[in-house]
Amino acid sequence: TEPWHLGGRALSSRLIVGTGGAPSLEVLGKVLAASGTELTTVAMRRVGDTGQGSLIGTIQQAGVAVLPNTAGCHTAAEALLTARLAREALETDLVKLEVVADDITLLPDPVELLDAAQLLVADGFTVLPYTNDDPVLAIRLEEAGCAAVMPLGAPIGSGLGIRNPHNIAMIVERAGVPVILDAGIGTASDAALAMELGCDGVLIASAITRAADPQRMAVAMALAVEAGRAAYQAGRIPRRWHAVASSPELPRPAAGVTA
Amino acid sequence: TEPWHLGGRALSSRLIVGTGGAPSLEVLGKVLAASGTELTTVAMRRVGDTGQGSLIGTIQQAGVAVLPNTAGCHTAAEALLTARLAREALETDLVKLEVVADDITLLPDPVELLDAAQLLVADGFTVLPYTNDDPVLAIRLEEAGCAAVMPLGAPIGSGLGIRNPHNIAMIVERAGVPVILDAGIGTASDAALAMELGCDGVLIASAITRAADPQRMAVAMALAVEAGRAAYQAGRIPRRWHAVASSPELPRPAAGVTA
Amino acid sequence: TEPWHLGGRALSSRLIVGTGGAPSLEVLGKVLAASGTELTTVAMRRVGDTGQGSLIGTIQQAGVAVLPNTAGCHTAAEALLTARLAREALETDLVKLEVVADDITLLPDPVELLDAAQLLVADGFTVLPYTNDDPVLAIRLEEAGCAAVMPLGAPIGSGLGIRNPHNIAMIVERAGVPVILDAGIGTASDAALAMELGCDGVLIASAITRAADPQRMAVAMALAVEAGRAAYQAGRIPRRWHAVASSPELPRPAAGVTA
Amino acid sequence: TEPWHLGGRALSSRLIVGTGGAPSLEVLGKVLAASGTELTTVAMRRVGDTGQGSLIGTIQQAGVAVLPNTAGCHTAAEALLTARLAREALETDLVKLEVVADDITLLPDPVELLDAAQLLVADGFTVLPYTNDDPVLAIRLEEAGCAAVMPLGAPIGSGLGIRNPHNIAMIVERAGVPVILDAGIGTASDAALAMELGCDGVLIASAITRAADPQRMAVAMALAVEAGRAAYQAGRIPRRWHAVASSPELPRPAAGVTA
Repeated sequence: TEPWHLGGRALSSRLIVGTGGAPSLEVLGKVLAASGTELTTVAMRRVGDTGQGSLIGTIQQAGVAVLPNTAGCHTAAEALLTARLAREALETDLVKLEVVADDITLLPDPVELLDAAQLLVADGFTVLPYTNDDPVLAIRLEEAGCAAVMPLGAPIGSGLGIRNPHNIAMIVERAGVPVILDAGIGTASDAALAMELGCDGVLIASAITRAADPQRMAVAMALAVEAGRAAYQAGRIPRRWHAVASSPELPRPAAGVTA
Repeated sequence: TEPWHLGGRALSSRLIVGTGGAPSLEVLGKVLAASGTELTTVAMRRVGDTGQGSLIGTIQQAGVAVLPNTAGCHTAAEALLTARLAREALETDLVKLEVVADDITLLPDPVELLDAAQLLVADGFTVLPYTNDDPVLAIRLEEAGCAAVMPLGAPIGSGLGIRNPHNIAMIVERAGVPVILDAGIGTASDAALAMELGCDGVLIASAITRAADPQRMAVAMALAVEAGRAAYQAGRIPRRWHAVASSPELPRPAAGVTA
Repeated sequence: TEPWHLGGRALSSRLIVGTGGAPSLEVLGKVLAASGTELTTVAMRRVGDTGQGSLIGTIQQAGVAVLPNTAGCHTAAEALLTARLAREALETDLVKLEVVADDITLLPDPVELLDAAQLLVADGFTVLPYTNDDPVLAIRLEEAGCAAVMPLGAPIGSGLGIRNPHNIAMIVERAGVPVILDAGIGTASDAALAMELGCDGVLIASAITRAADPQRMAVAMALAVEAGRAAYQAGRIPRRWHAVASSPELPRPAAGVTA
Repeated sequence: TEPWHLGGRALSSRLIVGTGGAPSLEVLGKVLAASGTELTTVAMRRVGDTGQGSLIGTIQQAGVAVLPNTAGCHTAAEALLTARLAREALETDLVKLEVVADDITLLPDPVELLDAAQLLVADGFTVLPYTNDDPVLAIRLEEAGCAAVMPLGAPIGSGLGIRNPHNIAMIVERAGVPVILDAGIGTASDAALAMELGCDGVLIASAITRAADPQRMAVAMALAVEAGRAAYQAGRIPRRWHAVASSPELPRPAAGVTA
C-alpha cells in the first residue's frame, strides 16, 4: 500500500487507533500489534507516568507513535494548556484537538474548536481537530491552518456508524488536507464505508477496545480500512434500478453447452 | 482463517467469484488470483470449449474449482437439463441453481426454484440455490435438501448493496446450512456487512469484473470479506444513543498531567 | 379525493384498518370513526358472535365494510375452509388471504399462498393476498386472478416500516391490480412513504390499535395516507447532491431592497 | 389542532411556506391558500415593490404573515443590514436569519451565524436562525437569545430529506425553544418524519414551489405536517425484531367461527 502523509509524517497504515476503553495495558499492546497502526491517540489527562509499564511505555514498546489529544477540554484555553503539556511531556508538536461542549454527548463545540485551532496553530502545533460533520466548519478549520480535519461519523462511543455519508462526502470533495473519520465507527463495514467515501484514514477507539474480542476486532478494522481504500481506488460500479446480467453473452441454455 | 464447508468441500476463502462481466480471459485470470477465491461460478451457457485458452481452462489454470450455474433458465425443466449438461461436462455434482422469472429483473422465480431444487436434489446434485431474501423460502429450500441458500442483497448487477439486512439476518438466524449472500454487492462495505450479518460467504461477480480496476476490486472484496467475518466473530459494541467517552478514566485536564 | 376500486368496490379512503390489537370494542369503534376507513379486516378465528356488542356488530355500527381474513392459516386447505366459513357468515366473497409459515414471524408462505390463491379464485372468491415483498410472487398472484396484491413492509406488528422500498416500487411498476401495503407500518411517515411509492392503499392494524392513543393515531394515519397520495400525484422534486437556491432571483442584499 | 407559539405569535398551522422557486405570483397565491400556512418567508433581496401585484402584496392578499429572511448574506454585518431594511420595509421584528458560507452549497456558516444572531438579538430582533443540524450550535443559538432554531434536514433545494434524524432528535431533546425543520424536505413523508422526531414545525419552499403540481403538493405537505404531529402525540408502537400477531386472541381457524 502506498504511503500517505499526515502532519508531515509518512504513514503506511490508514488506521489510527485510540487507546480509550482498553481493558488493560496487556490488551492494548495486543490491539496495537494486531491493528498494524503506526499512530495512536492518548488523552493527556490519562498520561501519568511515561515509563515502562505505563500507557506511554506500552505504546512505545509496540513501536507506535503517540498522538496526544485534548480530551476533556471544554474551552480553547484549556485545550492550549493541555496541548502545551503534551508537547513537553511527549516531545511532539502533533496534537489531536478535542474541545467538547459537554460530557454527555462529547460533541465538539464548533466555536471554541475553531478558536482553539487558531491558537494552537499560532503556537506552532500541527493541529488535527476532531470536528462535527459540517462541511463549512471543515473548511474553516483548514483555512485556520489545521493539518487535517477529523469529522465524526456519530457521537464518540455510540457505534452508530456514519449517520450522514453525504456530509462526509462533501467534506472530502472540498478538502485540501487529509480527512480522517473520527468517532462513531461500530464495526468493520463502517470503516470500509469511510474509506469508500474518500477519507484518507479512520480513527477507531471504543469499537476495538470495547469489542468482545478486541484483538480480533483490531484485525477486522485493519482489513476493513484497506478494503475500503482499495475499493475507492478501484472505481465501483454504478447503482442501477434493474438487474444487469452477469452472464449475458450467449443464448439460452439449450444451445449453450457443447461438451 | 478457519476452513468452512460448502457442499462437502472444505474452503478457506469465503469469497466466491462470478465470472460474468469479465472484459477478457486475461483480466479474469488476474481477478481470480487477486481474489484468493477457491470457487468460481460459470454460466453453463457460456461454456463452449473447455481446453486451454477457454473460460474453463483459464479457471483451471488459476487453480480454482468451477461451480456451474444455470443462469438463463426460466423453468425447473430447463434447470435440470442444464445441470445435467454441467455435470457431464465439468464432472461435478455441485450446481448453483438459478431459475429466474424474466430477463429484465433476473429475479428468482420462487415456485419454479423450489420445484427445481427438489428435482435436482432427487437427481443427486449438491444444490446451491440463488433465491430472493424471503426467510420462509430459505427454509423451504433447506428442507428440500439444498446444501446452502444464496439470498440476494439486491438484483443482479444493480450494485445496490443489501437492501434488506433484516431479512438476511432472519435467514441466518434460522438456517442450518451455509448462507451465501449472492447478487447486489456494489462495493467492499457491502461485502463486509454481509459477513457481519452472519453470512458464511459472499458471491460477487459484476462488482469486481465491471469495476474500473477489476484486479484491485478483487483485492478489496477479499479483504472486506475477511474483515466482516472477523468483526462478526469479534463481537461488536452495542449501538448507543449518546456518547460513551473513550477516555473517561481521569479527572479534567488541569490535573491530568504530571510531566 | 377521487374514488378507487378494490375487488369491485368503490372506495374513497385509501386506508384499510385492521382490528387486531384493539384494547376494547369501544376503542375500536372510535378508531374506525377517526380513521375514516371504509373497510376493515377481521380474523375469522376471532369472529364468534355477529350481533350487537360483538366485533362484527361494532364494525357494522361504524358503517364500515368487513374484509374477513384467514389469519392463523398455515395451508391452502385451511385457508379455503376459513374463507368459505367467512363467506357464509359474513355474506361477502371478499377475502384477505393469509397463509403464514409459522407463528413466530407470521411471514407468508409463498408456495402455500399461491396454491391457496388459485384455489380461492377457482371457488369464486375475490382474493386479496397478504404476501412478502417479492416482485415475482406479486406477478404470480396477479396471474392467478387475485384482485390486488398486499405486500408487507416488514413483519406484522414489528413497526419497522418499509424495509425495502425498492421492492415495493418494483411491485407497483409491474402490477395491473391495486397494490396495498400491508404489515410493518409503525408511524405516519411510513404510511405516507407507501403511498409515495405508488401503492393504492395501506392496511394498518397494530400501529393504530396498540399506539398509546389509538384514536389520535388513526387520525394521523388517515392524514398520512392522504398526504402520501397527494405527494405522489403532485410529482416531487428530484434529489440533488448540492443545494438549489430557493431565492436566487435577485443580486446580493446590499442592492436588494428598495423600501 | 392546538395553537403553538413562535416568536411571540400564536399559530395554528405548523407548516411555514417559503416563496422561493414559485413559478409565478398566481401560483404562489394558490400555494399559500392550499397550504393553510399562516407564515411565509420572503428573501429581502427579492422584495422590490410592496404594493398590489407585488410579492408582498400577493402574500398579504392571502392573509399570510411575512417572515423576511436574509438569504444571500455571507457575513453577520450583511445580515444585520438586511434585517434592518426588512424591519423598516415590512414593519416586523421577526427575521429568519440566514448566513451562508458560499453560493454552491448554501450551507450556514456556523461562526458568522452565531455572531449574527448575537448582533440581531441585541438590536431587538426576534431571531429565527437557519442552522446546520449540529446539536451544540443549536444550544449556542438558543443561549444567544434566538426565539427558535431551524436546523436543516439537507442542503436547500436538494430534496434529500432528513439525512441525520439522530441529530434532529438530539436537538429537539435539548431545546427550550421551538425547533423548525428547515431545508431538505423533498416529499410528504419527509415532513411527517420531521414532526415525528418532535419538531414544532417545518419550513418548506422548493419541494412545494418546484413540484410538478405545486398546489397539490402544498396540500400534501399540510396534511403530512398534521399527520406527523398527531403521530408524535399519539405515541407510536416500539420497533420489534419479530412479528407480533395482530389477531392472536383465539385458537386456530377450525374452531374460530360459529356462524
